[in-house]
Amino acid sequence: MSDVSARPVRVEPERVERVCEALSRVLSAGQLKRDEATLAAYARDESDSGVFPPDLVVFPEDTAQVSAIFKACVAHGVPYTPCGARTGKSGGSLPLCGGVAVSLERMNRIRSISVEDLTAVVEPGVVTGDLMKAVEAVGLFYPPDPNSWESCTLGGNVAENAGGPRALKYGVTRDYVIGLEWVLPDGEVVKVGRRTIKGVAGYDLVGLFVGSEGTLGVATEITLQLIPLPRKVLTALVVFPSVLDAARAVSAVLAAGLLPRCLELIDDVALRAVDGRGFQFPPGAGAAVIAEVDGHGAEGLFEELSRLGDICAQQGASQTLVAQDDSQREKLWAVRRVISPALRALKPRKVSEDIVVPRSRIPEVIERLKAMGEELGLTVATYGHAGDGNLHANILYEGPHQRPLVDEALRRMLVMTVELGGTITGEHGVGLAKREFLALEQQPALLELQRRLKAFFDPSGLLNPEKIFPVLKR
Amino acid sequence: MSDVSARPVRVEPERVERVCEALSRVLSAGQLKRDEATLAAYARDESDSGVFPPDLVVFPEDTAQVSAIFKACVAHGVPYTPCGARTGKSGGSLPLCGGVAVSLERMNRIRSISVEDLTAVVEPGVVTGDLMKAVEAVGLFYPPDPNSWESCTLGGNVAENAGGPRALKYGVTRDYVIGLEWVLPDGEVVKVGRRTIKGVAGYDLVGLFVGSEGTLGVATEITLQLIPLPRKVLTALVVFPSVLDAARAVSAVLAAGLLPRCLELIDDVALRAVDGRGFQFPPGAGAAVIAEVDGHGAEGLFEELSRLGDICAQQGASQTLVAQDDSQREKLWAVRRVISPALRALKPRKVSEDIVVPRSRIPEVIERLKAMGEELGLTVATYGHAGDGNLHANILYEGPHQRPLVDEALRRMLVMTVELGGTITGEHGVGLAKREFLALEQQPALLELQRRLKAFFDPSGLLNPEKIFPVLKR
Repeated sequence: MSDVSARPVRVEPERVERVCEALSRVLSAGQLKRDEATLAAYARDESDSGVFPPDLVVFPEDTAQVSAIFKACVAHGVPYTPCGARTGKSGGSLPLCGGVAVSLERMNRIRSISVEDLTAVVEPGVVTGDLMKAVEAVGLFYPPDPNSWESCTLGGNVAENAGGPRALKYGVTRDYVIGLEWVLPDGEVVKVGRRTIKGVAGYDLVGLFVGSEGTLGVATEITLQLIPLPRKVLTALVVFPSVLDAARAVSAVLAAGLLPRCLELIDDVALRAVDGRGFQFPPGAGAAVIAEVDGHGAEGLFEELSRLGDICAQQGASQTLVAQDDSQREKLWAVRRVISPALRALKPRKVSEDIVVPRSRIPEVIERLKAMGEELGLTVATYGHAGDGNLHANILYEGPHQRPLVDEALRRMLVMTVELGGTITGEHGVGLAKREFLALEQQPALLELQRRLKAFFDPSGLLNPEKIFPVLKR
Repeated sequence: MSDVSARPVRVEPERVERVCEALSRVLSAGQLKRDEATLAAYARDESDSGVFPPDLVVFPEDTAQVSAIFKACVAHGVPYTPCGARTGKSGGSLPLCGGVAVSLERMNRIRSISVEDLTAVVEPGVVTGDLMKAVEAVGLFYPPDPNSWESCTLGGNVAENAGGPRALKYGVTRDYVIGLEWVLPDGEVVKVGRRTIKGVAGYDLVGLFVGSEGTLGVATEITLQLIPLPRKVLTALVVFPSVLDAARAVSAVLAAGLLPRCLELIDDVALRAVDGRGFQFPPGAGAAVIAEVDGHGAEGLFEELSRLGDICAQQGASQTLVAQDDSQREKLWAVRRVISPALRALKPRKVSEDIVVPRSRIPEVIERLKAMGEELGLTVATYGHAGDGNLHANILYEGPHQRPLVDEALRRMLVMTVELGGTITGEHGVGLAKREFLALEQQPALLELQRRLKAFFDPSGLLNPEKIFPVLKR
């Protein structure tokens, strides 16, 4: 999605040298890297947004170092961009103008878990999956489960307000963040939020900072609310002849008052891509839904899953396969996880979208995406968190020569989403990938207000520059 | 809690006349009131924060009128303060400096309820209970249930980020607000947020605006997320010999992994006050907990409530009375609702606190509150949403001569709360009542950042002036 005309201006080398000298007085030798391999590694994320190498990468180990780095960058007029595990899908951590990449990955301690208070305090570099496992070991549950949970970090989850399949029932990252230690763009450190579950003292800056995509500062400590671990989970794979049947079933399940923790859709293209990779779909399968329910009483759950199966059958489901144990559950989820790599294997290139529509519009958006793909001659695979209307529509293509067509398809997809009352990003963020599309959804007065808010927090404009908002004419 | 030295300066009468003339060109005659009775009615709320009459009260009927009112007030240099049903507990809607009270109560239409999308769109003057009933009639559920739900409005709930007993399981107002039409202090109208359940496009201004206590603008349309109505609810009253036993039981229930939708504590003073008012407690009862569980399968719920009863018994509960039908449920909740008026009948005056501590600290805070009351010779009644650590500690007293002692008790209570890792307000807001205490909890840099943020949104400083933050020396 890189637009040459909007190519950002890189920082002057002399400034980089000066900030590097200043930082080498604050950091030890191993905390500052400039070798080619490191710069190349920090030049990309998991979006398809381009390659933007930083001029140096720093690895602070405590809050004071983060603060000192921010201050030095402002003092020397050098752009600085925080990053975590670089698993982002919207280019949020790419250092567009070069300068300093500030990696939080060495701040990776779980500072405390309180069973009595149902809270955890973590550093931003903690891998999400490591926290999940640590709290589950003491009977607690951290629900947000972005697909990259085995490698992404909680600081990145906070920056992007990450979601995941379980968001349907349990909400997203911001629903679990109650307090933050936050380094503002000028290096000042503030503690916002609280350590209690409830609280309304002062403005909700936690709410504003979570999801600010690394443009308003960075978290150096995160206080999370946890919940009791559900004692029982049941998982089923429901097979449908077509994706429209599956989409209608998702709507019908929710309209009937059921609230599974996940309702993941797999369309025909995705299903064919994964079929036979560790799991054999029954003949005639044209789409599938992975449904998962959880709770504390086993009886109620069987009842819930059985009602869900009945509703799906009424909508044309041919089969509901219920996992009988953990290894079967794992097998069903492996199907979901392998979709993205399996689609990549179908065609040389793939872009992944992250749209959300009101839940009643799920069947319609799927139908229109199919039609659009056919009209443009592109393969469109749609899967994802259909239960909350958040679909990952993927466009598969042959190579750069098809990119203009793909860009046209993306544009149409986002226009259609907004027409249907939806949003252009459900959980990946705007970052670089979608900044030119934000104006489809948000009115000029709102864009202007947010630009001014960014300038309020970051008057130098050096923190993670040129993200989220459409580039103004230079 | 009024401090004469900090008494706000009222706006000059000439300015009031000028804005009144300007507003009479925008509003019809019945939308602008200046009679004594109206001014007196809009001079107070349900806090004990003093009497501050506005110079006029306006009743806009649409967004354009709200915008025009804000613009006129800024143009003429007149303070303006939004209000709803004036059931606030922290003085948030009191027009401290006089000027214009902007009542949103005539904007009271439920614009839409979508069963398929699980959303509702309402105007700010809709009474919370009216929305609850309307969505329950179509099988949906709006969980936040502030005690005043029969009279408070959703606009007020948004301004204060209102909670309630069900917050324990279901969260507070902000967890259900997904979109807002918002009139900024200068009268500009922006649409923030979205109509979908999920979404991360741009900064989370919904998060910032909910709970901003009428100081950053006002909602003229609110889009709410709903959930399916739980099919089954079970309510029990658990009786304990002492409040410490009850507090320990609350902690033990949560530590055991149960998540009831409510766990309401009633201490000895509150219990004696309500005993015999429609409900007779068994002999020896020194405290009680109202526990409520909900879900979709009846079997699981009985199991959950029975485990809860067992845990309470281990902590010394003498009895668990389970409501057998809706009329018995209603009788138990009537006990909870009558606490506040019953305490008022015990002594001529009462102030109600709204503190939150980490859940593990509930027994300790209750013990320390009792001891403090004894030391100062004041009656302290503690009840409320113990499950999430949010306690309403009430101080009962004889009259104005005891007020200095009461103020000392309040100060000690808030200092203790912060020492225990808690917050000075769980759901009532800071407003006027607690603005001098915010500095106990929040560091100077954070207070300064928030003051600057207020000035960013409201450079004239005329919208709901002198709230939330400690008054600076004049």
